[in-house]
Amino acid sequence: MYRTHDCGELRISNQGQKARLAGWVQRLRKLGGMTFIDLRDRYGITQLTIDEKAPKELVAIVETLGREFVIQAVGTVAERSSKNPKLPTGDIEILLEEIKILNASELPPFTIEDESDGGDELRMKYRYLDLRRAPLRRALELRHRMAHEVRKYMDSQRFLEIETPYLIKSTPEGARDFVVPSRIHTGEFYALPQSPQTFKQILMIAGYDRYFQIVRCFRDEDLRADRQPEFTQIDCEMSFVEQNDVLQVFEGLAKHLFKNILNLDFSDDFPRMSYSEAMNRYGCDKPDIRFDMKISEITNSVKGKGLDLFDSAEYVGAIVAENCAEYTRKQIDQLTEWVKRPQIGAKGLIYIKLAGNDVKSSIDKFYTPDELKTLATTVGAKGNDLILILAGTKKTTLPALSALRLEMGTRLGLRNEQLFKPLWIVDFPLFEYDEETQRYYAMHHPFTSPVAEDLPKLETNPAEVRANAYDFVINGVEIGGGSIRIHDAKIQRTMFKVLGFTPEEAEKQFGFIINAFRYGAPPHGGIAFGFDRWCAIFGGSDSIRDYIAFPKNNAGKDTMIDSPSTISKEQLDELGLRVSD
Amino acid sequence: MYRTHDCGELRISNQGQKARLAGWVQRLRKLGGMTFIDLRDRYGITQLTIDEKAPKELVAIVETLGREFVIQAVGTVAERSSKNPKLPTGDIEILLEEIKILNASELPPFTIEDESDGGDELRMKYRYLDLRRAPLRRALELRHRMAHEVRKYMDSQRFLEIETPYLIKSTPEGARDFVVPSRIHTGEFYALPQSPQTFKQILMIAGYDRYFQIVRCFRDEDLRADRQPEFTQIDCEMSFVEQNDVLQVFEGLAKHLFKNILNLDFSDDFPRMSYSEAMNRYGCDKPDIRFDMKISEITNSVKGKGLDLFDSAEYVGAIVAENCAEYTRKQIDQLTEWVKRPQIGAKGLIYIKLAGNDVKSSIDKFYTPDELKTLATTVGAKGNDLILILAGTKKTTLPALSALRLEMGTRLGLRNEQLFKPLWIVDFPLFEYDEETQRYYAMHHPFTSPVAEDLPKLETNPAEVRANAYDFVINGVEIGGGSIRIHDAKIQRTMFKVLGFTPEEAEKQFGFIINAFRYGAPPHGGIAFGFDRWCAIFGGSDSIRDYIAFPKNNAGKDTMIDSPSTISKEQLDELGLRVSD
Repeated sequence: MYRTHDCGELRISNQGQKARLAGWVQRLRKLGGMTFIDLRDRYGITQLTIDEKAPKELVAIVETLGREFVIQAVGTVAERSSKNPKLPTGDIEILLEEIKILNASELPPFTIEDESDGGDELRMKYRYLDLRRAPLRRALELRHRMAHEVRKYMDSQRFLEIETPYLIKSTPEGARDFVVPSRIHTGEFYALPQSPQTFKQILMIAGYDRYFQIVRCFRDEDLRADRQPEFTQIDCEMSFVEQNDVLQVFEGLAKHLFKNILNLDFSDDFPRMSYSEAMNRYGCDKPDIRFDMKISEITNSVKGKGLDLFDSAEYVGAIVAENCAEYTRKQIDQLTEWVKRPQIGAKGLIYIKLAGNDVKSSIDKFYTPDELKTLATTVGAKGNDLILILAGTKKTTLPALSALRLEMGTRLGLRNEQLFKPLWIVDFPLFEYDEETQRYYAMHHPFTSPVAEDLPKLETNPAEVRANAYDFVINGVEIGGGSIRIHDAKIQRTMFKVLGFTPEEAEKQFGFIINAFRYGAPPHGGIAFGFDRWCAIFGGSDSIRDYIAFPKNNAGKDTMIDSPSTISKEQLDELGLRVSD
Repeated sequence: MYRTHDCGELRISNQGQKARLAGWVQRLRKLGGMTFIDLRDRYGITQLTIDEKAPKELVAIVETLGREFVIQAVGTVAERSSKNPKLPTGDIEILLEEIKILNASELPPFTIEDESDGGDELRMKYRYLDLRRAPLRRALELRHRMAHEVRKYMDSQRFLEIETPYLIKSTPEGARDFVVPSRIHTGEFYALPQSPQTFKQILMIAGYDRYFQIVRCFRDEDLRADRQPEFTQIDCEMSFVEQNDVLQVFEGLAKHLFKNILNLDFSDDFPRMSYSEAMNRYGCDKPDIRFDMKISEITNSVKGKGLDLFDSAEYVGAIVAENCAEYTRKQIDQLTEWVKRPQIGAKGLIYIKLAGNDVKSSIDKFYTPDELKTLATTVGAKGNDLILILAGTKKTTLPALSALRLEMGTRLGLRNEQLFKPLWIVDFPLFEYDEETQRYYAMHHPFTSPVAEDLPKLETNPAEVRANAYDFVINGVEIGGGSIRIHDAKIQRTMFKVLGFTPEEAEKQFGFIINAFRYGAPPHGGIAFGFDRWCAIFGGSDSIRDYIAFPKNNAGKDTMIDSPSTISKEQLDELGLRVSD
């Protein structure tokens, strides 16, 4: 037996006991005639102590130790003279009696500490060393715990976890597929799933009633920071449900996780906000509601006073930063530069500062103090507030106001990582109109059902039809989304018509699922959550990469194993493939 | 709300209550003036009843119903006059008051019954209909339950479930990889994992101590019956362990599953059998020990009596079929034909029948009755037993005897599907010698550690070195296998030497994992279980296909979605690939 205890286990109550531990040398310190070794494993750190009067052989071995050596140590548990209250084992130490080097280690290329001195690339290449650091270990422990609690809850709600295939079929809609050449059927390809969408609908048609799966999905997109070519979803579907049934079950899941992972109670229902309210008051469909600072449209209140910026604008909107009237010229200039960056793209920033009865603004040439005060009242400003105003097209100004709002929230410390504000967004539009191709596209997918009361408008005014679709948002991050699917063949036909498909085209593109619908499809709907992102949010991080054991870098590469890489000519020949010159 | 109860829920205690159900029409029967509808969902079947005196509109709708229509029904729970004891809901029926067709169904191409009239191919194409049959539903429910219990046990033993990547690197050793062309890095490929072997070892080096994952694996092999290109493993690894630690933890897992899935208690330790005993006494490395009928080698007992079949044989072995002396000439002839089939490949079958003091044999020209009786005693035969003997090379005769033993076990009803006999096979050889290439190959993989006491023979007599490797077998089916890995760099170097690798070749082929070993690798070992197969065994089936929701056929095709299939020229161009002519 390699060990009697792990490195996080021993306490003062074990005093006098003999213990055998195994782990990695985290730190070595010499003090007077004493040597202290911090021994680390997944469970904690225990201090081993040896003094110079120890047997020579023992001292000799200790002399050869280095950081990250794997050792086995035997000794007696003793009370420490100088205790370490930061460590659960900090009251004791082990007086070393035997030691064995199980494996030496070369000097790691970076420090294995909470804050490492290694750069991103180096730590990716030596991911096995980076993973030894406590923050990453805690991230993966959290992920394990999350997955386990998701499964516990889903099982308690009679959901069956059913594995769907990874070698499926490439479809032209949506993002780009990764494909897998078939050797047996040369010239043919499987595709890796972007999501198990059709399979989960098939499972409903097959009568499985409640399905879920924690499942890998694949998207061959051009990578951005924090996008991974493979990512994990909690994928769910239910039969004989309406929107409210789905929201209740999954609000239950979220509350279960808040309680069991973070020990947070949410007794009230999560708020539900319509897509249009989210867009109008927060400028985006995933508002961070940890703080207020809502957007007010003031287009009609500001026109006709000779300020061209406003007079020529399709849209003028404002946010109110409470008690920020003290902002200096320099701070305002900085904010102005910030909104003018290409990522935000505003032309400029207008401010109004309130200070008691005083009012100061970058537009006081065009508006009287009273007009400015009225405007302030309109947007709900008071006291020492600062009003920030952007103008332009509605399509660009709302997102810019949203970004400015989040930036101000961050600057004012209103976005506490320990505070969680979940939110449902509902009543999404069913369609998006694309100016370029002059046609409607399904905002979610072509099987998303319209809200019943909007059905009469489906053919006459598609733009105004709302979808039975919903997103789940925490702290401004979209964690999940789903919809009630169409199960009525007639509505489905109209849907395809609005989308510009002939019945033949629909059949060709969505063939086997349309076929399956002919044999008794129940009403059904579902949701999918981004598991990597949910873990990161719960871990208080905005990077998913730390919550994935072996992520790819921004170029889609795994530099640890050096993948992707070339394959042999024999492999290509067997697959009947040639790489183009 | 679509339903107040599911179709398996109502009992006599609900009598008089109003209930709303939704589901599929399983059967429609008319009897006198009554119509009976069996309404089915995942949870059961409930009988709906309507008589001719019901409102016309209601009768009219019922008239239009067909099999597999999806309906919603409202009515009052009543006691049945003729109860059905086979159904949990068999004491009641619903007196129909309202009915709504949620979706019609075309006539299914085969019957949705426990025994369907549809052929394999048709049922694969309409998998969503096949999945409605109760045996498949029970199989997937069992699978869900199994996975859930695996996770519960592993979590209780402090294992972390950690997801490893699916887009990894192709390696030349082992079976053929499925590859995934990279678009961003044209000409380069990812590979789909055959198993997470290197990643789980990396996780041990990273200090994660106890890892598991229920994970999909991929092998591009020529398919045989019951092989799937994608399959699921329970993949596990532990640090600071010796073989016995691993066996104990996973014997615990098996006992947990036996108890919680099948309600079977196993208080005793599972037997452990050496590879050599398994080969010598059962003719294979995965013996079915639900019955005895062990193989006895009688090579030396039968030689020199002038029977060329024996005299020229390298090996002669026998099994004893108890109380089978009554076997007729015809039965023996049949068995003889059976062993002569190419799959078995025996040249012939020798028998000895005991009947009290009498003895009858196909070789009584060469052996006296006393000699035959002595032989019978040697192999442990008595009473009315039948001795069956095969001869030839050891390499071909032992497997033939194994097959014959299993066949006799089946014919004699000794292989009860409800009886479970788990078994560990240990002490596998470390190497296999390949005559063709005249070199040793690692029987498991090059990181499998040798048994300590055999270490001195590693270079001098590799063939006799046993591995710290083990297989888990239930009822003659290999469910899992694993090993303690090498963590000592010196032994690893010797291992590569015996396998004929230069250090450079080893570095090239196993590069990054060898590198990882330089930074403090703990002693570690693990195991992987075939999850599909384990589910099938527990379900009492020998086909894994029913335990996979969407399996591929024997040609690796998913005929439901028609995959693999061709992709567009644009997709190929983006990947920089051409299909060879």
